[in-house]
Amino acid sequence: MERMDHARLQQSAKDHLWMHFTQHARYADAEVPIVVRGEGAYLYDQHGKRYLDGLAGLFVNQLGHGRTELADAAAAQARELAFHPLWSYANVPAIELAEKLAGYAPGDLDRVFFTSGGGEAVESAWKLAKNYFKLTGRPMKHKVISRAVAYHGTTQGALSITGLPGLKQQFEPLVPSTFRVPNTNLYRASEITSGYLDGSDPEAFGIWAADQIAIAIENEGPDTVAAVFLEPVQNAGGCFPPPPGYWQRVREICDRYDVLLVSDEVICAYGRLGEMYGSTRFGYQPDIITSAKGLTSGYAPMGAMIASARLMEPFQEPGAMFAHGYTWGGHPMGAAVALKNLELFETEGVLEHVRDNRDAFRATLERLLDIPIVGDVRGDGYFYGIELVTDQATRATLTDEQCERILYGFLSPALWEAGLYCRADDRGDPVIQLSPPLIIGQAEFDEMESILRDVLTRASAML
Amino acid sequence: MERMDHARLQQSAKDHLWMHFTQHARYADAEVPIVVRGEGAYLYDQHGKRYLDGLAGLFVNQLGHGRTELADAAAAQARELAFHPLWSYANVPAIELAEKLAGYAPGDLDRVFFTSGGGEAVESAWKLAKNYFKLTGRPMKHKVISRAVAYHGTTQGALSITGLPGLKQQFEPLVPSTFRVPNTNLYRASEITSGYLDGSDPEAFGIWAADQIAIAIENEGPDTVAAVFLEPVQNAGGCFPPPPGYWQRVREICDRYDVLLVSDEVICAYGRLGEMYGSTRFGYQPDIITSAKGLTSGYAPMGAMIASARLMEPFQEPGAMFAHGYTWGGHPMGAAVALKNLELFETEGVLEHVRDNRDAFRATLERLLDIPIVGDVRGDGYFYGIELVTDQATRATLTDEQCERILYGFLSPALWEAGLYCRADDRGDPVIQLSPPLIIGQAEFDEMESILRDVLTRASAML
Repeated sequence: MERMDHARLQQSAKDHLWMHFTQHARYADAEVPIVVRGEGAYLYDQHGKRYLDGLAGLFVNQLGHGRTELADAAAAQARELAFHPLWSYANVPAIELAEKLAGYAPGDLDRVFFTSGGGEAVESAWKLAKNYFKLTGRPMKHKVISRAVAYHGTTQGALSITGLPGLKQQFEPLVPSTFRVPNTNLYRASEITSGYLDGSDPEAFGIWAADQIAIAIENEGPDTVAAVFLEPVQNAGGCFPPPPGYWQRVREICDRYDVLLVSDEVICAYGRLGEMYGSTRFGYQPDIITSAKGLTSGYAPMGAMIASARLMEPFQEPGAMFAHGYTWGGHPMGAAVALKNLELFETEGVLEHVRDNRDAFRATLERLLDIPIVGDVRGDGYFYGIELVTDQATRATLTDEQCERILYGFLSPALWEAGLYCRADDRGDPVIQLSPPLIIGQAEFDEMESILRDVLTRASAML
Repeated sequence: MERMDHARLQQSAKDHLWMHFTQHARYADAEVPIVVRGEGAYLYDQHGKRYLDGLAGLFVNQLGHGRTELADAAAAQARELAFHPLWSYANVPAIELAEKLAGYAPGDLDRVFFTSGGGEAVESAWKLAKNYFKLTGRPMKHKVISRAVAYHGTTQGALSITGLPGLKQQFEPLVPSTFRVPNTNLYRASEITSGYLDGSDPEAFGIWAADQIAIAIENEGPDTVAAVFLEPVQNAGGCFPPPPGYWQRVREICDRYDVLLVSDEVICAYGRLGEMYGSTRFGYQPDIITSAKGLTSGYAPMGAMIASARLMEPFQEPGAMFAHGYTWGGHPMGAAVALKNLELFETEGVLEHVRDNRDAFRATLERLLDIPIVGDVRGDGYFYGIELVTDQATRATLTDEQCERILYGFLSPALWEAGLYCRADDRGDPVIQLSPPLIIGQAEFDEMESILRDVLTRASAML
């Protein structure tokens, strides 16, 4: 098969490819950036220009590019068994991976339901929550509580519990009966609590934020609420770690009201925070974990819902069935790649590497706090957000005009131009999102900081 | 990494794997069937026993197992670029595949939005329909019409338009505002039309069935209806091909009411009916095609929504965006596998092979009509359903007790035991579903018929 040349690739991309979450008009008179090749933590575009992959693709590429072990594992499995569904059947890598994930997962999370990706895992978790309560004599429990500005996926169930009105309003009506509570943006504690707390006592803010979940459950009626969906560290809005005491209080509340705690770890699992699961990092016990992305380091599409053994019991009765599934769930090749990926985590000490380097990553990024436009640097592990402000003292955010002109008009292309692939985002307040491959260390931290310093300094001058 | 032995695989599958659409109690005292290896049209289980893959996995494996060209294409791409998202960026195989799919698709279906699989493609199509009408001054158009017994996916949007109450009731409430119309089960025309038509005039039945869509649109209000979702040949219920004139009348109705015609070709595209798209097979022009499965012959998870260029126009305005996407959409490895798969379709004349052999496949299966339990053999291309009855003359269907005892208790395990992998299903009336790899010919047709003859004859004796 003949490959297209550069000009034809550009034209064809513009004529036929519908890119995701993309303003296509931006490329009307500009090149579509075409990523051609990867090597370690670096990407190369169609002109051979190199970029540090500061977002690991989209929070997925834990081991970096060019890992021939993963390519070989994919090919070996494809030669052995191209595909067979999990619909009443099993395949070897899916079984082995299920056992491995159950082994890593906290407590009694022993049951693995495979999906194609994160959104499907979230759909599965909500459907399981609805079905579980209907089967166990609490059929009114179906509602979901989730957090403001949180992203949980774009299929219409996952979208319904997403806390971003701008992503939802064009698609209404969606699945009814979902409700938002505050997130844990400590930097904006004063705004979030309407001035009740200023964030100087993180623990008090965390307890307050957790208690809003109890209030929401009371408002809707505990007999009608099935689950709470929360990320270990919330991504959208720009990395909100949990304040001390938050998760413990959330777990108490879920127990009190018999509501399932779903830990949406599509981003935070598989080493992103230095543990296999984000819930382990913060020491809480969820009833369900949803995961995807880093499970295969992005080398193959795959996701997994990991549930408490207790939640499967009603479905093990004679005649009972969780009437749910996906064609690609437990795809043999995806499972084989995931197994090899997790094996490399162990042989190469990837979790240890993240634990050994995360403080240095934070310290390196915090150097940027001397740039006027940088308001906050926050995150955990290899997962950070840099919030932009017009005034560090007042924490005043950018206007819509400044967001369009500085964040999207300047910063986003300038960072790319300077050789750093990351994400400028204003789904909440404007932020730069960073989530590099887990294999990098101080040299790449410094490279990232240096590019960010230059570009953010120039952005400051545009305020 | 050490592989598990047979006993450990069995135990681990039972302890950790949550299979899809599976009554787990059936395996409490029985082995989980574990598929280990594939070669051409054949599967091998953990004991080395061979099975004809009569369902192509799950309607996916067009080229059969062990295609090293596809395994090599996957590995080559994984070595070059493991992953990069389509979120404001493009990658080479995704661009090339988009152009190729647009080239195959009928009429002005020039825009390709990639997904991880079929359900996500259906979600994308409905979200596009809602968004398109909101952007073009008809914001009330959001409802969907679909057919009774039709399956469109299990994420909560796709599930909402699925016409199988048994798959939905545990998960209510779902996305509101979806409505069912009759399917084209000619064999049950009399029941479907409440005795108004007996099916002896297929064209009259087809026009009647299409006209029910117009009635549903009128009932709900044309200003509120966005789309009609229909499969070229409906799968659930056991292969309902369109009666003559059906699609032409459906297209007229969609035009009359300004409603988008979505052709859900997750099963019927990529050669299943002897054409790249099912709509081509029946000569109608959809506004959107949803596809997945055969796109990669199942070697990698992938799906695609292919839309009319006209539907993208409002999203190409400055500042506009289709606020939708999936992490794995346009995955470089999936796209590389799909490109190689479609190249092999061309070099090996796969479509021609299906066209040359489909009459023989039908004729071979129709031999089974002399077995008392066989009521109907219907389908198109390499896609067939065999409906089971207790009386060929009256067309009386099986009771629930007979379904449980004969369809699930006997037929399903007996076919597997006899070396044929296919699906026994009673989501509508009880059927055996067949959808083999597109590479097979008369020898495998005969093998299939011979196994079915033996097992169905024994089933007849159980009535």
